[in-house]
Amino acid sequence: MSGMENSTAGKVITCKAAVAWGPGEPLVMEEILVDPPQKMEVRIKVLFTSICHTDLSAWKGENESQRAYPRIFGHEASGIVESVGEGVRDMKEGDHVIPIFNGECGECLYCKREGTNMCRDYGVNPMKKVMVSDGESRFRTKETRQPIFHFLNTSTFTEFTVVESSCVVKVDPTFPLQKMTLLSCGVSTGVGAAWNTADVKAGSSVAVFGLGAVGLAVAAGARARGASKIIGVDINPAKFAKARALGITECVNPDELETAAHEEITRLTGGGVDYSFECAGSLTALREAFLSTQLGWGLTVLLGVHPGPNMLPLHPMELFAGKQITGSVFGGFKGKTQIPRFAEECMHGAVNLDEFITHELPFEKINEAFQLLKEGKSLRCLMHL
Amino acid sequence: MSGMENSTAGKVITCKAAVAWGPGEPLVMEEILVDPPQKMEVRIKVLFTSICHTDLSAWKGENESQRAYPRIFGHEASGIVESVGEGVRDMKEGDHVIPIFNGECGECLYCKREGTNMCRDYGVNPMKKVMVSDGESRFRTKETRQPIFHFLNTSTFTEFTVVESSCVVKVDPTFPLQKMTLLSCGVSTGVGAAWNTADVKAGSSVAVFGLGAVGLAVAAGARARGASKIIGVDINPAKFAKARALGITECVNPDELETAAHEEITRLTGGGVDYSFECAGSLTALREAFLSTQLGWGLTVLLGVHPGPNMLPLHPMELFAGKQITGSVFGGFKGKTQIPRFAEECMHGAVNLDEFITHELPFEKINEAFQLLKEGKSLRCLMHL
Repeated sequence: MSGMENSTAGKVITCKAAVAWGPGEPLVMEEILVDPPQKMEVRIKVLFTSICHTDLSAWKGENESQRAYPRIFGHEASGIVESVGEGVRDMKEGDHVIPIFNGECGECLYCKREGTNMCRDYGVNPMKKVMVSDGESRFRTKETRQPIFHFLNTSTFTEFTVVESSCVVKVDPTFPLQKMTLLSCGVSTGVGAAWNTADVKAGSSVAVFGLGAVGLAVAAGARARGASKIIGVDINPAKFAKARALGITECVNPDELETAAHEEITRLTGGGVDYSFECAGSLTALREAFLSTQLGWGLTVLLGVHPGPNMLPLHPMELFAGKQITGSVFGGFKGKTQIPRFAEECMHGAVNLDEFITHELPFEKINEAFQLLKEGKSLRCLMHL
Repeated sequence: MSGMENSTAGKVITCKAAVAWGPGEPLVMEEILVDPPQKMEVRIKVLFTSICHTDLSAWKGENESQRAYPRIFGHEASGIVESVGEGVRDMKEGDHVIPIFNGECGECLYCKREGTNMCRDYGVNPMKKVMVSDGESRFRTKETRQPIFHFLNTSTFTEFTVVESSCVVKVDPTFPLQKMTLLSCGVSTGVGAAWNTADVKAGSSVAVFGLGAVGLAVAAGARARGASKIIGVDINPAKFAKARALGITECVNPDELETAAHEEITRLTGGGVDYSFECAGSLTALREAFLSTQLGWGLTVLLGVHPGPNMLPLHPMELFAGKQITGSVFGGFKGKTQIPRFAEECMHGAVNLDEFITHELPFEKINEAFQLLKEGKSLRCLMHL
């Protein structure tokens, strides 16, 4: 076993992690024990991690049925393989990797089919909190040996994590890991939604609702595809300067309009956009996004998470005017097979990854990083472990 | 003008029509006056007409905002051109034609684009009740000269009707007009939804909710494409024999199940169907149809009309599992350019049109024909004028 070559392989590792003990409570930086990776698992030394809105929403405990404590959140990260469990053939100690919350086993019905990036056992699943193989956690508190739950297949707010190998992507070691961190979730999700889910065409028009990292990644993806008009919609005008840097051509603040946002967008485009993207997680934005698209062929892509019980605010007959609506998970990328190539494209300039890193902090200041995101001040705050 | 060649061209025609005077009231067979066709209009001698659920729903006045009386309903028919108005170049007296409720002007944004069969001015519009060119009706009552409103671009419950040429399709005069009547709405809508909107693949699985003429046309279309499993769902088991004749391979009656229909369909298919079609106009059926499809790629196509105010009974997050939902109007056919070829395919056996004509009656018995449809006894009752 390749994992036996270093001094920690096969042993329990003691390290620091930011543990969540209850909804909305500040994370507690404490020592934990991390078990060795079991069969088809990988233990990763996390070097960089950042926070995404899904962490924020889980941290707040917005969806009660998904609450589980103590827990290690975090799913956007990069690091180096410390050791691998039995059967892992595609990675070894020292490899540069990013965890992916939506895995690819390569064997199931979905993985074998083109056009979907679902995975039967390792797809995104907010209810999952333990490993698939034995239903156990690989984390325990140092003090009481209490198990700590995993999160979104990944759990990256820790110096070491154990992830199923289906949820780990190897990247070229010459690519800076800081930048690769962004491909672990936000940038892949947004750019992929434009490239894979919507297949944005050159010369087309696009509206993006919600100008966080995912929304701006959509804009960057649409720009890379040659979209001629990329309208950004947000109620926080402080986001507009960065938005313009990433490809947004026109900014719309619904709070400053006398009409609904979709009416303004219809006016700006002479009939509606070809594609709209809901990245705000708001049902109002969802409906406005749908209404902003062109009759006959407009496509609305949902990326935002909607934790509430409310149903789609669309009437069935509204689907009879040639408009489509669909959801996009992880940008439609099959992670293990497609992200390495996407990383190359980014390094060749398809997307300017640096623009997304607006803040950097040491891992210890993770609660500050949460505040920055919560207040809409950061796109991504890169934490150094 | 070619229209001047016969004895009635250019003159007002007096003929019989079945006039609706109020919601749900029996139609009144009475004499009306039919004006000559104006610029880009066609006057048709209707030879056959039948009734579709959209007529039934409009007759009942289910959608108050769409009520207008007196009115001539009917939109599925066939006939012969009596005369044409100025500028009509693609049809002349004597041509065999079918009216289409969803027209194709050939000039607008939508008509010029592939992948949509919308039309700016002549698309399906339940609010439209007069001609586009002058905002007037071409029908008046004989007795008081009161204008009678048009319906769905067509108005076929009359011996003569005037239709905008964008809403008239010429068919091969060697094809029996009785059969062509079915292509005017129901069969084109159903078969086209399977062929154009869903693009059903050979070997795939299909569920059809609602086994009226449109649902069975979906089944016939799916069978023609080589679908291997076509599950029909209806609460009226009297429909199952005919359903089997038209391609349904398994029948499901939700009232006889102990589980939900989608659970039975998931069981029958080992995971869900590739395509489901909602042809019942019921929100319960809509949700069951959506839940019946396979995670990862299942497509739900809406064909049923939902006149109520209720919104889509789907949660936004339910769109994140790779399932799509879309609506289909007139089977996605661009009527004037694609229906003549579809008629040929039907005559060559792609779809057995005869199976859809379950009853025939003289036009005078139209109220009986309404009852047959209302009670679920007929697929199509062909009326002879």
